[in-house]
Amino acid sequence: MKSQISLLLENVKRTNPLIHHITNYVTANDCANIVLAIGGSPVMADDFDEVEEMVSVASALVINIGTLNSRTIDSMILAGKKANALNIPVILDPVGVKATKLRTHTVNKLLDEVKFSIIRGNMSEIKAIAGLESNIKGVDSNDTVNGSEDIAKTLALDLKCVIAITGAKDIISNGRKTTIIENGHPLLSKITGTGCMSTSLIGTFSSVTNDYYLASIAGILSMGIAGEMAYDSLDKKDALGTFRVSIIDSISALTSKDILEKSNLEEKYC
Amino acid sequence: MKSQISLLLENVKRTNPLIHHITNYVTANDCANIVLAIGGSPVMADDFDEVEEMVSVASALVINIGTLNSRTIDSMILAGKKANALNIPVILDPVGVKATKLRTHTVNKLLDEVKFSIIRGNMSEIKAIAGLESNIKGVDSNDTVNGSEDIAKTLALDLKCVIAITGAKDIISNGRKTTIIENGHPLLSKITGTGCMSTSLIGTFSSVTNDYYLASIAGILSMGIAGEMAYDSLDKKDALGTFRVSIIDSISALTSKDILEKSNLEEKYC
Amino acid sequence: MKSQISLLLENVKRTNPLIHHITNYVTANDCANIVLAIGGSPVMADDFDEVEEMVSVASALVINIGTLNSRTIDSMILAGKKANALNIPVILDPVGVKATKLRTHTVNKLLDEVKFSIIRGNMSEIKAIAGLESNIKGVDSNDTVNGSEDIAKTLALDLKCVIAITGAKDIISNGRKTTIIENGHPLLSKITGTGCMSTSLIGTFSSVTNDYYLASIAGILSMGIAGEMAYDSLDKKDALGTFRVSIIDSISALTSKDILEKSNLEEKYC
Repeated sequence: MKSQISLLLENVKRTNPLIHHITNYVTANDCANIVLAIGGSPVMADDFDEVEEMVSVASALVINIGTLNSRTIDSMILAGKKANALNIPVILDPVGVKATKLRTHTVNKLLDEVKFSIIRGNMSEIKAIAGLESNIKGVDSNDTVNGSEDIAKTLALDLKCVIAITGAKDIISNGRKTTIIENGHPLLSKITGTGCMSTSLIGTFSSVTNDYYLASIAGILSMGIAGEMAYDSLDKKDALGTFRVSIIDSISALTSKDILEKSNLEEKYC
Repeated sequence: MKSQISLLLENVKRTNPLIHHITNYVTANDCANIVLAIGGSPVMADDFDEVEEMVSVASALVINIGTLNSRTIDSMILAGKKANALNIPVILDPVGVKATKLRTHTVNKLLDEVKFSIIRGNMSEIKAIAGLESNIKGVDSNDTVNGSEDIAKTLALDLKCVIAITGAKDIISNGRKTTIIENGHPLLSKITGTGCMSTSLIGTFSSVTNDYYLASIAGILSMGIAGEMAYDSLDKKDALGTFRVSIIDSISALTSKDILEKSNLEEKYC
Repeated sequence: MKSQISLLLENVKRTNPLIHHITNYVTANDCANIVLAIGGSPVMADDFDEVEEMVSVASALVINIGTLNSRTIDSMILAGKKANALNIPVILDPVGVKATKLRTHTVNKLLDEVKFSIIRGNMSEIKAIAGLESNIKGVDSNDTVNGSEDIAKTLALDLKCVIAITGAKDIISNGRKTTIIENGHPLLSKITGTGCMSTSLIGTFSSVTNDYYLASIAGILSMGIAGEMAYDSLDKKDALGTFRVSIIDSISALTSKDILEKSNLEEKYC
């Protein structure tokens, strides 16, 4: 699997895929820079009158509901349907779902009207989508990971898409296979946008393969390894500003060799 | 007072309070990262249909009018009223008030309909709210600080809230007590968002105490000390990009000891 | 010409001009910080009800369509007309024009209703405005520079404004004179916002002179030299996060001496 992921990384760098985002204004800059750093080309466009055209020239669509509003929700649905019609993968980041009814309704509507290839969230967000009780506070998660592999697997089968849960351990499942990733660093949860950036990386990898399970692993693994490299590079281990800069540095420096040598993952078959 | 502020810092780190922001798209990322760096948990959400719910699970609400528009103004008022009903502190950053009628009218409307715990602005913004002549240009201030202590005190009594004026010297007053802070560095005015971030820090501190005067001092003091630490850490003293990164580094490294040793403040009783 | 540009730089630092932006939420923070770093004062304001007043106190208006929407398009036109009436220079960054009909129609409408002093784009964007075939993908350009000097010159005469094309070589023309700049570094295309920031720098320089051709050269040259200085400062040459920070460092450290010594430009008369 590591060599397949290395190959995806090379394909991204070779093909420079265009990744259309309808996303939030808090981390849009981070998402654009992480896509560029891995080798893709980001575009953020959210007006109802242009998203169909924009997604038509893109290789993947990332929908992130971080700062959703009535105007952009309509654009998300329209762009998602168009991407479906063109067989362009659509990735959902259901930021803070269940924190408010608007987020819950929006995610439900998106799931009804758009076929997603991949959904990436934290444990609370994925549990909310699965209809399970969760302990959500704002847009960050306080949930434990008990039974999380089963949740990912069941929801993947139910929604017929890849489910990626990020946390201390990351869990990626397509319903038949599940991969656990133990890369990353706790400091990743202390800067904004690492979840959103993981989703953008997943979107970038999904544009160069039909194996969305592998693309999801590749995206989360890249962020995890970058988090470790960034932490290792810190002189002062509590320097969150420098850590944030180093994550972009680490993604732009990430090589196939890093993937092969630093990956800490385990695959399980159901 | 320094030991009380140290205690607030520890309480923030221990309780990880959720700080709801309705804010601008220029510095939203900076505000999110500074809240995380000090130990809080930020959430930015501005749709009319979700702000009441979001603020209900938050410990403080920060309203920043930096890039206000008709849609978000309504959300600010709705969220503010809900926060009032739930006794959640509301902090106002009246960015560029009086630069345009829209900003002036919005601040007047907010003051009419929402009870603010704290207002933080530069001298021009606070003078504008106080109905005094000011010399505002865009969203930055060119005003002198003559009589600024009296202005802060009078406005605090008038609006029954804490008034925090940031500048070369910072002035915080609740009408009965006034504190002057002389921490900080002139370079703080050469990067965008330091005012907004100060307000976000104030919001974070206000969520762990009922003493909003102390919370305001704590927020501004933290930014001031961080500015000094960031400046001291610079190899090249005119490196504004590195300075910006170092501010986040300094806030994430800020300890009770720093508060005790580096604070340069003076309290006056009326 | 280099000494004239040095003089503009000094004038910016001396007068601290206010630069009004109606721009996108992806790079707004970068644009604000680059304007501050060069010595200007940025303001971002996009509500229809305030843009006329805001632009009235500004020294230049930058219109960037990166994340345009129906609400902000109306604001762009209104602000542009007001700036025209007040003889305040207006600079257009036609991000991704021709990628979607909305962008093409918006640029056409802006060109119909607003008199621009300067338009800065990549080769694809400028070709699109000139009505020539281009090879646009999203908001980034893949175009070659064959005949680009003629395109710049012809469009400058046609639109009666300065045309600035940025790329491996930068071409700036007012129809009578054309300057080619060979400063810069390929890494500038690997982080988001360098185009937007160039436009913001042009806007800043345009506020201290009536020679918009010179202002355009000054803005692009500053970014090019800053890119070289930032690249030279890198320990790890693929560190895109650090490179981004160093660009702001380099702009804030940029001196007249740098302009005089590092400029690599050639002027041609038609």
